[in-house]
Amino acid sequence: MVIVMKAQATEEDIRRVCEAIEQIGFRAHPLSGEGHTTVGITGNRGDAGRGDLETLPGVAEVRRVLKQYKLASRETKPDDTVVRFAGTDATIGGKDLAIVAGPCSVENREQAFELADQIAATGARFFRAAAFNPHASASRGLRVETLKILAEIRERFALLTIAEAVDSETLGLTAEWADIIQIGARNMQNFSLLRMAGRLRKPVLLERGLSATLDEFLMAAEYLMSEGNYQVVLCERGVRTFDSHAGNTLDLSVIPAVRQASHLPILVDPSHGTGRSDSVLPMARAAIACGANGVAVEVRSLPEKTPAGGPGSIDPEQFAQMMHELGQIAPVVGRTLPRETHGGAAAE
Amino acid sequence: MVIVMKAQATEEDIRRVCEAIEQIGFRAHPLSGEGHTTVGITGNRGDAGRGDLETLPGVAEVRRVLKQYKLASRETKPDDTVVRFAGTDATIGGKDLAIVAGPCSVENREQAFELADQIAATGARFFRAAAFNPHASASRGLRVETLKILAEIRERFALLTIAEAVDSETLGLTAEWADIIQIGARNMQNFSLLRMAGRLRKPVLLERGLSATLDEFLMAAEYLMSEGNYQVVLCERGVRTFDSHAGNTLDLSVIPAVRQASHLPILVDPSHGTGRSDSVLPMARAAIACGANGVAVEVRSLPEKTPAGGPGSIDPEQFAQMMHELGQIAPVVGRTLPRETHGGAAAE
Amino acid sequence: MVIVMKAQATEEDIRRVCEAIEQIGFRAHPLSGEGHTTVGITGNRGDAGRGDLETLPGVAEVRRVLKQYKLASRETKPDDTVVRFAGTDATIGGKDLAIVAGPCSVENREQAFELADQIAATGARFFRAAAFNPHASASRGLRVETLKILAEIRERFALLTIAEAVDSETLGLTAEWADIIQIGARNMQNFSLLRMAGRLRKPVLLERGLSATLDEFLMAAEYLMSEGNYQVVLCERGVRTFDSHAGNTLDLSVIPAVRQASHLPILVDPSHGTGRSDSVLPMARAAIACGANGVAVEVRSLPEKTPAGGPGSIDPEQFAQMMHELGQIAPVVGRTLPRETHGGAAAE
Amino acid sequence: MVIVMKAQATEEDIRRVCEAIEQIGFRAHPLSGEGHTTVGITGNRGDAGRGDLETLPGVAEVRRVLKQYKLASRETKPDDTVVRFAGTDATIGGKDLAIVAGPCSVENREQAFELADQIAATGARFFRAAAFNPHASASRGLRVETLKILAEIRERFALLTIAEAVDSETLGLTAEWADIIQIGARNMQNFSLLRMAGRLRKPVLLERGLSATLDEFLMAAEYLMSEGNYQVVLCERGVRTFDSHAGNTLDLSVIPAVRQASHLPILVDPSHGTGRSDSVLPMARAAIACGANGVAVEVRSLPEKTPAGGPGSIDPEQFAQMMHELGQIAPVVGRTLPRETHGGAAAE
Repeated sequence: MVIVMKAQATEEDIRRVCEAIEQIGFRAHPLSGEGHTTVGITGNRGDAGRGDLETLPGVAEVRRVLKQYKLASRETKPDDTVVRFAGTDATIGGKDLAIVAGPCSVENREQAFELADQIAATGARFFRAAAFNPHASASRGLRVETLKILAEIRERFALLTIAEAVDSETLGLTAEWADIIQIGARNMQNFSLLRMAGRLRKPVLLERGLSATLDEFLMAAEYLMSEGNYQVVLCERGVRTFDSHAGNTLDLSVIPAVRQASHLPILVDPSHGTGRSDSVLPMARAAIACGANGVAVEVRSLPEKTPAGGPGSIDPEQFAQMMHELGQIAPVVGRTLPRETHGGAAAE
Repeated sequence: MVIVMKAQATEEDIRRVCEAIEQIGFRAHPLSGEGHTTVGITGNRGDAGRGDLETLPGVAEVRRVLKQYKLASRETKPDDTVVRFAGTDATIGGKDLAIVAGPCSVENREQAFELADQIAATGARFFRAAAFNPHASASRGLRVETLKILAEIRERFALLTIAEAVDSETLGLTAEWADIIQIGARNMQNFSLLRMAGRLRKPVLLERGLSATLDEFLMAAEYLMSEGNYQVVLCERGVRTFDSHAGNTLDLSVIPAVRQASHLPILVDPSHGTGRSDSVLPMARAAIACGANGVAVEVRSLPEKTPAGGPGSIDPEQFAQMMHELGQIAPVVGRTLPRETHGGAAAE
Repeated sequence: MVIVMKAQATEEDIRRVCEAIEQIGFRAHPLSGEGHTTVGITGNRGDAGRGDLETLPGVAEVRRVLKQYKLASRETKPDDTVVRFAGTDATIGGKDLAIVAGPCSVENREQAFELADQIAATGARFFRAAAFNPHASASRGLRVETLKILAEIRERFALLTIAEAVDSETLGLTAEWADIIQIGARNMQNFSLLRMAGRLRKPVLLERGLSATLDEFLMAAEYLMSEGNYQVVLCERGVRTFDSHAGNTLDLSVIPAVRQASHLPILVDPSHGTGRSDSVLPMARAAIACGANGVAVEVRSLPEKTPAGGPGSIDPEQFAQMMHELGQIAPVVGRTLPRETHGGAAAE
Repeated sequence: MVIVMKAQATEEDIRRVCEAIEQIGFRAHPLSGEGHTTVGITGNRGDAGRGDLETLPGVAEVRRVLKQYKLASRETKPDDTVVRFAGTDATIGGKDLAIVAGPCSVENREQAFELADQIAATGARFFRAAAFNPHASASRGLRVETLKILAEIRERFALLTIAEAVDSETLGLTAEWADIIQIGARNMQNFSLLRMAGRLRKPVLLERGLSATLDEFLMAAEYLMSEGNYQVVLCERGVRTFDSHAGNTLDLSVIPAVRQASHLPILVDPSHGTGRSDSVLPMARAAIACGANGVAVEVRSLPEKTPAGGPGSIDPEQFAQMMHELGQIAPVVGRTLPRETHGGAAAE
C-alpha cells in the first residue's frame, strides 16, 4: 500500500501519516519525489487501517501496489530517484550521466593516483576499486590500507568512491571509508547482507545476479529499502546464457524494463558484463542510448606501465574516447555528461 | 584457405586463380573488397596445392583461415561486405543505416499501401512483410497474392521488399517477387533450405536462431556462401534466456562480436527481439550505438484504424520518432540515415 | 474441442461423428484408446456446432481442450498412445521399453551388419542411422545406397529402422525405405517439413529442439497430428543452458512433465543429449527410472576396428551392459525389456 | 600439488610430510581414503619445494593437479569421500543411500514430531528443516526455539539434523545445535560464509547455485575444504534455463559429471529442483539410477492436517512409496537403503 500525499502537504502532514502507520503496527517509508511525497508501507497484509489513513490531512490517495516489490516500484513512487552526495553536485539518476571508473584492484598507491587523475580529468565523478576481492582473503589490515588510499583519492581528486562489502566486517569498513557501498552480483541474494546494508544511510550500488530475473533484482533492492535505505543504485553487469562469445551476456534489454518498473537509477557495467575490451565502448554507447543512468567501467593503467588488467578493461585513452562518444549520445536521450567540454577536450 | 590478391591484380588474374582452384578439385569464391580481392576456397582439407597457387600472377598471399566458417570470416575478407541493389542507391552494410519496416502481415491492400507510404516518407528503404507466416498453411494462391502486393509497393513507393521463405516452394516464389529473401530464426539450421537459397543470386536476410551461438550463426551464413551466394545480411532478433521481462532477450552484445568476427552486415530487430512496444525505440537506438548496420521493426497502422499488431510493434508516429533519434545517433558511429533531412522533417 | 465416445460406441457411431464434424467445416481426428475412442477436432474456433454433436449416438461428452495443443494433449486422449508396427510385436509406448541403437553413420555395409547383429542380440528392436547427415550434402545416389543397407538390416536382423528426413526429397525416400521417420532437433520448428510428414502414415520420431519449451515441443507434434499422422514419438536429446560440463544439458525433468501433459510416448537420447560417453549409461538408467518409454543411443563398433564415433557413443559391450541394467530398472516402473532373458545373457 | 602417500605410510610419515609442507609456507590437507592417504597442498604456486617432498619417508609420488579446484578434485583423492557421524552408523557417500526429509519450516512442535516419526519409520536418517528461512527476518529467539525442536527430534527419533546458515550468527547457532550445516543455493558464492564454515569441523551440505557451472560448484566446495573442513556434501537442486515446465530445471546430468570430477558425495533435491509434487518421485528414482548418493525431499503433513507445503512437497504416503521404489533401484547401482526391510514394510 502507498499513501500519495498532496503536492501542498506539509512536513507535518507527512510526519503525522508516518506516525499513524507506525501506530497500526506497520513501517512507514516517506519517499520524496519532484512534485509530491509518497509514503510506502511495509509489513502490512491487505488493507488494514486503510480507511483511517485516507482521512488524514495532506493525503491525496491511498493505493494498493500490485508488484511483489513495493518501495522499489514505480507504482509507489512515479518520479525517478536521484541519489545525491552531500557537499558535491554529483548525482546518480539525475540529468547528468554517472560515470564510474577505476582499476580492478588498488595495489599500488602511485598507480592508483595516476589513474584517478586521468579519470577525474575526463569529468567522471566516481572512482571504484574492488577494495575487497571476494575471492581473496585479505587481512583486515590490508583492507583498511586500500580503503585509506580510496579516501586519499576522494580528497585529492574530488572523486566519490565505491568499494565492495561482502559481510558484516567489510560492510562496516566500507561504510566508514567510502561514499558508496557495492553489493556484488554473487551476493545479490545474500539477504542477511542486504538487511545490514539497509540499516545504513549510505548509497548502495546493487549488482544484478548472474541469473537474477528482473523481479528478483528489484526484490533485492526492496530488502535494502524496507530497512530504510532508499539510496539504491542498480547495476546490470551481464547474465548467464548458453552463448560464450563474451564472458557473460550483457542484458541491455533490462534497462527499459527496469526504468518502467522502478524509479531507481540503473548503471551498466560493460567491462564485467562482456569481459571483452573491444566490446566496452560499443556497449557503453548502447547503454546510454537505451536509457541507462550511467556506466561503470574498469580502466587499467597504460600497458607499458602495468600490463595486467581484467579481460574487459580499457586503457585511459579508450576511456577518454568513451567519454567523448557518450557526450555525443547523451543529448539524444535528454542527458548531459558532467563537465562535458572538459571531457571532450581530453578526448582530442 | 584464402588467396589474397594484390591490389593491382587484374580480372584475368583472379579468373586464373579461380580456375586453378577448381582444377585441383575445390571451389573458388572470389570476394571483392574495397581495395583488393580475396578468393576463398571451400572443399579443401589441409594445404593441398598451396604451393602452386602462391606462384600465380596477382597473388599476394595464401593464408589459412582458422575459424570453422571460412567465407563468412573477417580473416578471409577484411573489408565490410556491402549488399547493393541494382537500379537503386540503397545498401546494407555501407555508410547509410538500413532501416527495414513493415507490418506483421499484409492482409489488406489499402492498409499496406498507406503504411508503405508512411514508411517511405521517413527515408526508410526496406519494406518487410511476413508474407508467409510459417505457422499458417496459406494456400499457394494467397501467397502469390501477398507477394504481388509487395511488388506493387516496390513499384509505387520505391521500397525494396523482404519476404520469408520456409521451403523450396516459398523460396521460389520469394526469389521471383521480392528483393530480399528472409530465412527466419526457426529455419536458421534448416541446412536444406540454406543450400537452396545459397544457389540463388538474391540477398538473404538470415535471422539468428533463438539459441544459436555466434559460431553457429556464422556457420549458417557459411552454408549460404559456400553455394556461391555472398549477399548475406545477418539479423539479431533475441535469444532464449531464463528471464521473462521481455519475450526474448535481445543480445546486443553479439553486434560488436559479429563485427569483429565477420565482414557481413548485421541488423537488429527490436520488435521481435523484445516483444515489448515500449522497448523498441530504446533498443533501436542502442543497436545503432553499438554498431549495427540498421534495424528492422514492425510497424502497425494507427490504433484507431486497426488495433491489431504484434506485441513488439510500434505505430507510424513512433516510427518517425525512431528515425529522428537514429538520425542523431548515426554520426556518433560514423553512419548516416538515408534522406536524413526528410526523416527529420517527418518526425516534427 | 474433443468428442468423448461412449465405451460401447460402434465404428459406425464414430464414423457418423466424424462426418458431422467435417460437414460443419472442421477436421475430425478419431483417436482410439484402450477403453474408448475420442475424436479431436481441429480448425474450429469456439464452440460452433457443439450442440448438435452432443446428441449423436455413441457420444458421451463434448469437452473443450484448454491447452494450445489439442490432439497431442492428454486432455483429448487420456490413454497412452502405443505406436505399433505391422507384422511385428514391437511397440513404442507400450509395456515394453523401446530401445533404439545404431551408428552415427552407415558408411560401411559390413560394419553396419556386424553392429546390427550385436544390437539385435541384446533384444533391442530399433536400428537408427543418421542416413542423411543434415550437415553433409550427400548425393541422392548415396542416400538411396544408405537406405538400402538399412532395408537389408531390417530384413536380416528383424530390426525396425529409423532414418532422418530434412526436406521433401529426403522425406519421400525415408518414408519409402525406413520404418520410422526422424525429424531432428534443428528441424523441430520447420513447420513445412512437419506438415509434409503429417500427411504420411508412417511413425515419426520428433526430437526436441535445443531451446524448445515443453509447449513448443508438443505444438510441433500437433502440426504432425493435425494433418492426420497420430503416430508420433517424442525424443528428449538435451537443451541449451549456461553450463558446459556436457555438450548439452539432458533435461530428464521434462519426462514426467510430458507424460502428464500428453499421451504421446517419449524416448531419451543420452548419447546426443550429453555428448559424453561416460554419462550414457547413468543417464539411460535415469531416463527409464523417471518414466521414459525407452532410450536411443549411438553405438560404435569396437575401437580396435573403427576408432571413430560421436562424442557420446558407447561400444557394443557397454550397450549390452546398459540393456542388462535397464532390464533391472524396468520392473520398478512397471515396464519390461523385450526378450529380457536374452538381453541378460548378452551382458554376462 | 598433491602428495600421494604409500599404502604402508605411518601416521608419523604423514605428520612429517604435513610439517614439511607448512615449513615451506603452504598448507597441508591430509585426506585419508580407503587404501592410502593423499596430502593436498594449498597456497602454492608452481612446484616450489617439490624435490624435497618427494624424498620424505612414506611418499609414493608428488603430482600436480590440473583442475582449478584441488582438494575437491578426484585427481587429489581418488577414493569416494564418506561423511560419517559420530555415535551413529549413518553415512553420506558410502554404500547406504542418504535420505534427507523434512518440512519446509518447523512451526509447530507436535506436527514436526509426527512428521519426524513418519520419516524415521521409513529408514531415512536425516531430518532437514529450513530453520532459518533466508527470506524471513526471524528473531534470534525464534531461531533458537526452532533449533531446539530439531535437537529434540534428534534425541527422540535418532535422526541427524540439517539446518541452514546464512551469516555468521546463524552459522554459530546451527553449528551448535544441528548435525549438518546447509549452505543454500543463494549463498553458494558467499565466499565470506564459505570460509567461516570451512573453519568449523561440522559437515556442510552445499547447494549448487541456480546458475553455477560444475567448476564453480566445486570451487565453492574448495573454499570450504581449503580452510580444513573436508566433510562436504554437494546437493543439486535445479538450475535456471529458458524453460518453465518446472520451477527450475533439475540437472541430473551433473551427477555423473560430479562423480567423475570429484570424490565428494552428491545428493539431489527433486522437491526444490522441480517445484512440482508430481515430479518428485520420478526424479528421485532417476537421481539414484544415475549415481547420486541420496536424495533430499520436502515432506508435508497429510493434507487433512495442514494443507500448506511448498510446491514440490510430497506427503508421508508418497514418501514411503518413494523409499520403497528407491530400495528397488539401489541394488542396480550397487547401493543399499538403510534398514531396507523396514523401509519396504512401511510402504506396504
